[in-house]
Amino acid sequence: MNIETAYKTYKEIYEKIAAYGHAMRILAYDGETVAPALAAAGRGKTQGILSGLQYELYTCPEMTEAVSYLVAHADELDEFRRREISEFNKTNEYVSSIPAEEYVEFQVFINEAQDVWHRAKQTNDFELFRPYLEKIFETTRRHALYYKPDQDPYDTLLDMYERGLTREKAEVFFAALKEKLVPLMKRVFAAGEIDDSFSFRTYPIEIQRKFSDILLHSIGVDRRRCAIGETEHPFTDCMNRNDARVTTHYHEDNLLSSMYSVIHEGGHALYDMGSDEKLDGTCLFGGVSMGIHESQSRLFENIIGRSREYIDLIFPKLKELFPEQLADVDARKFWLAVNKSQPSLIRTEADELTYAMHVMVRYELEREIMAGRLAVADLPRAWAEKYREYLGVEVPDDTHGVLQDSHWSGAAIGYFPSYALGSAYGAQIVDRMKKDIDFEGAIRAGEISKITAWLTDKIYRHGCMYDPAVLFENCCGAPFSPDYFVDYLTKKYETIIAELTK
Amino acid sequence: MNIETAYKTYKEIYEKIAAYGHAMRILAYDGETVAPALAAAGRGKTQGILSGLQYELYTCPEMTEAVSYLVAHADELDEFRRREISEFNKTNEYVSSIPAEEYVEFQVFINEAQDVWHRAKQTNDFELFRPYLEKIFETTRRHALYYKPDQDPYDTLLDMYERGLTREKAEVFFAALKEKLVPLMKRVFAAGEIDDSFSFRTYPIEIQRKFSDILLHSIGVDRRRCAIGETEHPFTDCMNRNDARVTTHYHEDNLLSSMYSVIHEGGHALYDMGSDEKLDGTCLFGGVSMGIHESQSRLFENIIGRSREYIDLIFPKLKELFPEQLADVDARKFWLAVNKSQPSLIRTEADELTYAMHVMVRYELEREIMAGRLAVADLPRAWAEKYREYLGVEVPDDTHGVLQDSHWSGAAIGYFPSYALGSAYGAQIVDRMKKDIDFEGAIRAGEISKITAWLTDKIYRHGCMYDPAVLFENCCGAPFSPDYFVDYLTKKYETIIAELTK
Repeated sequence: MNIETAYKTYKEIYEKIAAYGHAMRILAYDGETVAPALAAAGRGKTQGILSGLQYELYTCPEMTEAVSYLVAHADELDEFRRREISEFNKTNEYVSSIPAEEYVEFQVFINEAQDVWHRAKQTNDFELFRPYLEKIFETTRRHALYYKPDQDPYDTLLDMYERGLTREKAEVFFAALKEKLVPLMKRVFAAGEIDDSFSFRTYPIEIQRKFSDILLHSIGVDRRRCAIGETEHPFTDCMNRNDARVTTHYHEDNLLSSMYSVIHEGGHALYDMGSDEKLDGTCLFGGVSMGIHESQSRLFENIIGRSREYIDLIFPKLKELFPEQLADVDARKFWLAVNKSQPSLIRTEADELTYAMHVMVRYELEREIMAGRLAVADLPRAWAEKYREYLGVEVPDDTHGVLQDSHWSGAAIGYFPSYALGSAYGAQIVDRMKKDIDFEGAIRAGEISKITAWLTDKIYRHGCMYDPAVLFENCCGAPFSPDYFVDYLTKKYETIIAELTK
Repeated sequence: MNIETAYKTYKEIYEKIAAYGHAMRILAYDGETVAPALAAAGRGKTQGILSGLQYELYTCPEMTEAVSYLVAHADELDEFRRREISEFNKTNEYVSSIPAEEYVEFQVFINEAQDVWHRAKQTNDFELFRPYLEKIFETTRRHALYYKPDQDPYDTLLDMYERGLTREKAEVFFAALKEKLVPLMKRVFAAGEIDDSFSFRTYPIEIQRKFSDILLHSIGVDRRRCAIGETEHPFTDCMNRNDARVTTHYHEDNLLSSMYSVIHEGGHALYDMGSDEKLDGTCLFGGVSMGIHESQSRLFENIIGRSREYIDLIFPKLKELFPEQLADVDARKFWLAVNKSQPSLIRTEADELTYAMHVMVRYELEREIMAGRLAVADLPRAWAEKYREYLGVEVPDDTHGVLQDSHWSGAAIGYFPSYALGSAYGAQIVDRMKKDIDFEGAIRAGEISKITAWLTDKIYRHGCMYDPAVLFENCCGAPFSPDYFVDYLTKKYETIIAELTK
């Protein structure tokens, strides 16, 4: 074996692994968006078989041998291939650490668990979902220990979604937010109520669909490369730079829910679609971590999408679509409505200011379960307590509580902190961007492509070439600090308090 | 090896083959319905890899050995397994006869060809598509000769879509139709023009979508097991009995186009979804041949869907959806409109009476190309001549001529005759059914489930257990004869002539 034959072997097998991945993601996307309800069982069977075949390739002797050789001779590889092998090897070590049968069985189990979660959420039946959730926590913990036997399993999971993140760093981060944001929240809540009642009038879904097209266009999403689907729980997936899928959920009596889902998911899609062409079909394609990914989705959703400039840009188009529903609304009123901050129950509908508190609840609960200090059976009670403590709300039922998110049913434990981290990353990224371009001016002029071009250059095109902390520092010229996020929110909500009290 | 271990090996490998098939069909469905335009290349690459992996399983030594053993010991298998192995072996012999590289390359080529065909059709550019079509005819011919070196390749292809069909039988069939239907067509055309202008008013697509739900419900399609999508060219695919997909294409200015696509595709879906549960996941699942499949789609579309009883049933619901557009239309007028017969250019929009002529054109052209008597380059000219001769119309351009159908770009050569054959099968099946149930009465009462139950018992549940001719004779108690179809059309159009001339 030499470096060329080893790399060739790696590439040949990797292409098959990627083809399985592509097929399984399309099966999942199809399942979430358009498949008939009873198709789940057949899909699960096929996904089980494909993930077993994919697992075989990850762990087959040819692949193991080739990758071992390449890792041992990494200094002979160019930067791109070196990174490719090192990133693949990380995934490979994780996958290979789990026994084959257990790996496949768990994929099938998760497919089933998501179905059960859907039903449990619909019927407010935590007990239905509880045994599944118990097994998911247990299994995820066990898998983390297979992979890194000497490391705290929750730290291992945090690192898998955001490389470098530990409980210790998360505590510091959340403590900073809590210290600064809780007093700000209190001042905002006291400043007076914003009237957003117009947003709950009847907005026909067919017209909301047209608005989605306008929104995606406004942030520069190329629709020849990006489709939009409808799901229970919005998400984005991207097969390659020419095939992104964003999804949303329309509510006829809630205009803002889908509007901000679409902008959020559009941000995810822009990131993946901005990956350099040479990364396509390699393991370096797409977003490097969940934190950086969420920084983009939340930057578009919040920093751009809830800015006064963006509302001035988009509101006239919206009013054309819904002239009757918005007859008594102007841009200022709309802007205030999309920035209404209040204690609430549902994370995905939470405003920018309280959002991090929702995440903190989940982080703390995951941490306690993983540490064995909290039983899954006690989750609903613990959830309610934390919502009372951090957000001052009473949780009426599990549908609006512990069953609201799809993450745990998908075994995405350790994912949540990246949402809050991403929001904070975004503020610092925009702060740095403003040294190069007129951020507000670009939005006002409808030239968001200028912002996207800057982000593409600094972040998107690099795919997974750099660890998130390195990428972030290359982009911002400084390590991450939560101060920018706190400053951004403080400045923004001072303006809103002033508007409300003038 | 013994019979049990051989069968077990077969099943284990077949499940993987089926999983690849499932994934590739979902990729294709996704591509046709919702994928963004530029996703085709990435999808093609993945489909190429998956079909290569699937091919490897078809031809791997374990499978070959197990199947050879089972074929040799077929008399020790029960009826179900014997049929399973014999059917699998047929596909296997075909697939294995094609060299691996050529097989995969052609799958990828077809994916590209379909894209090129789409563009060629849109831009009326036959020359763009010509080299692809030449390669498709050449390759399909070569593959047929690999599979059955001693048989005429077009006979081989006809047999693949409708086991037992040969050019000789097709000639007899088409000659019978030509002899009887051409004089009938002339009489119908002379009887006076039917006014269907109302069907080209503006029918908002959003409301047509609701109508599709009503139509599928009316013929008893269980929507928990069947989704509906939108495509350029309507088709149906069925992954398993709990996962059917019908598609349609809405035209705002053409009500009947989607209406009859939906009923037609719904018929296909009912057939596959009616497969016995024990056939799920085996190679015996679903429709046994294209002719029998089309017999069901066209039975629902035409014999049921264009009957006076069905129109009386469905028209009031349609009028509720489109009160303004149909203000001056009653059920009689609507029934006459859906049965308007006229010379036309587009097969999928052709009426029941002229439809077989469209198919005959394609059959004769395929036959001539396969025999080397016609060059692909001369197809547009030959197409125009045949349309002039059989249908009395001038073909204005290739978009409305030789480029109209997707079959050839998908290498489905030999498929077309099954459409005409299916129509004719349907008439004889209904003739037999009327001895058991009150066909018209069931439609009138909205009890189409009675018809579906009869068809399920006689046809659907058997999947591929019997060759089409055997299944047909078991169902009808007599071999196929085109006379039933000719009689059905004669009787139906006599009624219409009487209506028009009274």
